[in-house]
Amino acid sequence: MTVPIAQRMNKIGTETAFAVSFEAGILARQGKKIYPFHLGDMNLITPPVVMDAAIDAMKKGKTGYCPTAGILELREALAKDVGQSHKIPLAADQISIQPGGKPTIGKFIMAAMNPGDKVLYPNPGYPIYESQIDFHGGVGVPYGYKEAEDHFILDMDVIRKGIQAGAKILIYNNYQNPTGASSPKDEIQELARLAVKNDLFVLADEAYFDIRYSGESLSIASFPGMAERTIILYTFSKKFAMTGWRLGAAIGPAPFIELISKINVNDESCSNHFIQYGALAGLQGGSEAPQRLLSILKERRDLLVDRLNAIPGIRCFRPEATFYLFPNVTGAMKRKGVAEVEGFRKLVLQETGVSFCTRRHFGRPLPGETEQYIRFAYSGIDLDQIKEGMDKLTAFLA
Amino acid sequence: MTVPIAQRMNKIGTETAFAVSFEAGILARQGKKIYPFHLGDMNLITPPVVMDAAIDAMKKGKTGYCPTAGILELREALAKDVGQSHKIPLAADQISIQPGGKPTIGKFIMAAMNPGDKVLYPNPGYPIYESQIDFHGGVGVPYGYKEAEDHFILDMDVIRKGIQAGAKILIYNNYQNPTGASSPKDEIQELARLAVKNDLFVLADEAYFDIRYSGESLSIASFPGMAERTIILYTFSKKFAMTGWRLGAAIGPAPFIELISKINVNDESCSNHFIQYGALAGLQGGSEAPQRLLSILKERRDLLVDRLNAIPGIRCFRPEATFYLFPNVTGAMKRKGVAEVEGFRKLVLQETGVSFCTRRHFGRPLPGETEQYIRFAYSGIDLDQIKEGMDKLTAFLA
Repeated sequence: MTVPIAQRMNKIGTETAFAVSFEAGILARQGKKIYPFHLGDMNLITPPVVMDAAIDAMKKGKTGYCPTAGILELREALAKDVGQSHKIPLAADQISIQPGGKPTIGKFIMAAMNPGDKVLYPNPGYPIYESQIDFHGGVGVPYGYKEAEDHFILDMDVIRKGIQAGAKILIYNNYQNPTGASSPKDEIQELARLAVKNDLFVLADEAYFDIRYSGESLSIASFPGMAERTIILYTFSKKFAMTGWRLGAAIGPAPFIELISKINVNDESCSNHFIQYGALAGLQGGSEAPQRLLSILKERRDLLVDRLNAIPGIRCFRPEATFYLFPNVTGAMKRKGVAEVEGFRKLVLQETGVSFCTRRHFGRPLPGETEQYIRFAYSGIDLDQIKEGMDKLTAFLA
Repeated sequence: MTVPIAQRMNKIGTETAFAVSFEAGILARQGKKIYPFHLGDMNLITPPVVMDAAIDAMKKGKTGYCPTAGILELREALAKDVGQSHKIPLAADQISIQPGGKPTIGKFIMAAMNPGDKVLYPNPGYPIYESQIDFHGGVGVPYGYKEAEDHFILDMDVIRKGIQAGAKILIYNNYQNPTGASSPKDEIQELARLAVKNDLFVLADEAYFDIRYSGESLSIASFPGMAERTIILYTFSKKFAMTGWRLGAAIGPAPFIELISKINVNDESCSNHFIQYGALAGLQGGSEAPQRLLSILKERRDLLVDRLNAIPGIRCFRPEATFYLFPNVTGAMKRKGVAEVEGFRKLVLQETGVSFCTRRHFGRPLPGETEQYIRFAYSGIDLDQIKEGMDKLTAFLA
């Protein structure tokens, strides 16, 4: 028989970054030394306080179903923790626990977006936004970032045009993958003003909110009029090095969160029961464990930024948040006589073993884009390997 | 602002059984002794071999992302295990690990069903089938079961009519929740013949395939021409008492399984990494641990069936599989002068503390239905409590 395939499957996307992983894997099996900067996974240990509490709960029989929105203790702890960091009142009924950060993207779109609705989303950005918008019949309206002197800024003109064209939903990923962009207060404020004025509903993907090296993270949900129109994507993945545990939450106005939980009932019943006690212990354990992870990441960031900026034809900002760098390599590509960024990536991988993603893994280039960018993740590679990889890259591009 | 709600949210259903849980909980907090037969959760301990392996993997750092389709070792082990029990050749690329059994329902429907497509599904049946069909714009075509002398049989006429009306997708839940129905070989054979003849695509929900007390479970996927047109919903939840771990799989033709995994990338990236090693150890641990669970469940079944059949006006089959009973209570309701089965449930709960679901929690009654049914789950209640509850129920209905 011919297996039936629904039409919506022609519109679903994927994370093309996995293809880079695959290429690097082939070279590694051929004996090539690889320096893995391509994936946002972490080679850091989940804090023992989290592991111990999860094991304890497992052994105490927290192995049956739990409420579809998650255990009450964790929802209460998150309401308190996120309420404090965001300076907004939050209650347990505003929180729906999810099997990861990512599930909030698809569920937000299914619950808020009708087919044909226009949705503003970042590009370059996490490719799942565009994929889920397309998959469920929406119309994606991409907006980009521009280079200022020492950081990326939102292309607010494109956002305004999108709103004028009828977009009522905004996906905003501050602190951003892949650029590492951190909106300063005035930028978030202007975005919040536009959202309130034009009655936008906002998904604030805050996966990297707590991966912050200096200053203080700010949420768009904290600005006047925004808490009632913002769904926060929260995840335990990065803050507690729990990427493979799959635990996160959707946080926002209770009536909408109830819809998200109704989708939970239909999609997966609930998230793993006992690991929620691990996350709870993590939240209650104070900032020591997360700070230890941050200090490791900060060292990596500083070494990598310094080494990249020392290479002719590369310009790289030093982001205050996330574990991504998005260096401009237009000059380096010219020097090597390579016109296309994916060709550049493959050449570097082949010649040096340094493996990274490019702008192309984060959406289709926007009209007028002339500069070339690559993305480094430093969450999965140790200092000595960063050093060794940068030695090779420097020699190759010298 | 008014939070935007997508139109599809008007069509999503839920598990109304949770409302029974809620009612019972209120009574319990008022000091009423409750006998919980309403939920299909398990009060049995996950086998130590599973727990130990999961803990070991967690401590060895299997805490980062894993492949979106699951770890290769588990996919290989499942291919071997399910291949043997189903007597069909299976390979790892035919298996996509899921965060539970349930996710396969929604992903199957999203990948196979276009809006407007007719889908045959069991009613009474697990309410998520109808909900997901409606949610994604399909047209549900319900088929029921009829009482034979000592077991339920499929209403094949309704299935034939559904096929004549254009249904191309069939959801088949053998061994069935809520009826406990186990299709004998000739019934599965006839269904398979119809499927091949009419080019149907089949979701075989086999959540209870391994919860089998006598005889041997048979899969529709094992019949000629069926493996290429069947997606098996597999779950670790029941066989290993892992309901709250959330781990299962979609199993079937590789090209379709690849689509399911593509939805994984978009929905949740992957299932929890380290618990997959627990499930792997469970599969490799042989039949001892599952048999121990089964012998406990069998004792419960036999006691409960005997006690129910001893009550005037109740007729209850002794299913060979699942942990559900679906007694006919038409007579008992008449004796009590209650016309509506939900009224009967509430009366019994209030008067005796015996808490169960009814036929109404598993779909809208079909035309011509005259008999009244309730559903008992015995997965979450010990023998002494079954005895005590049945004493009270017997006294009340005498």
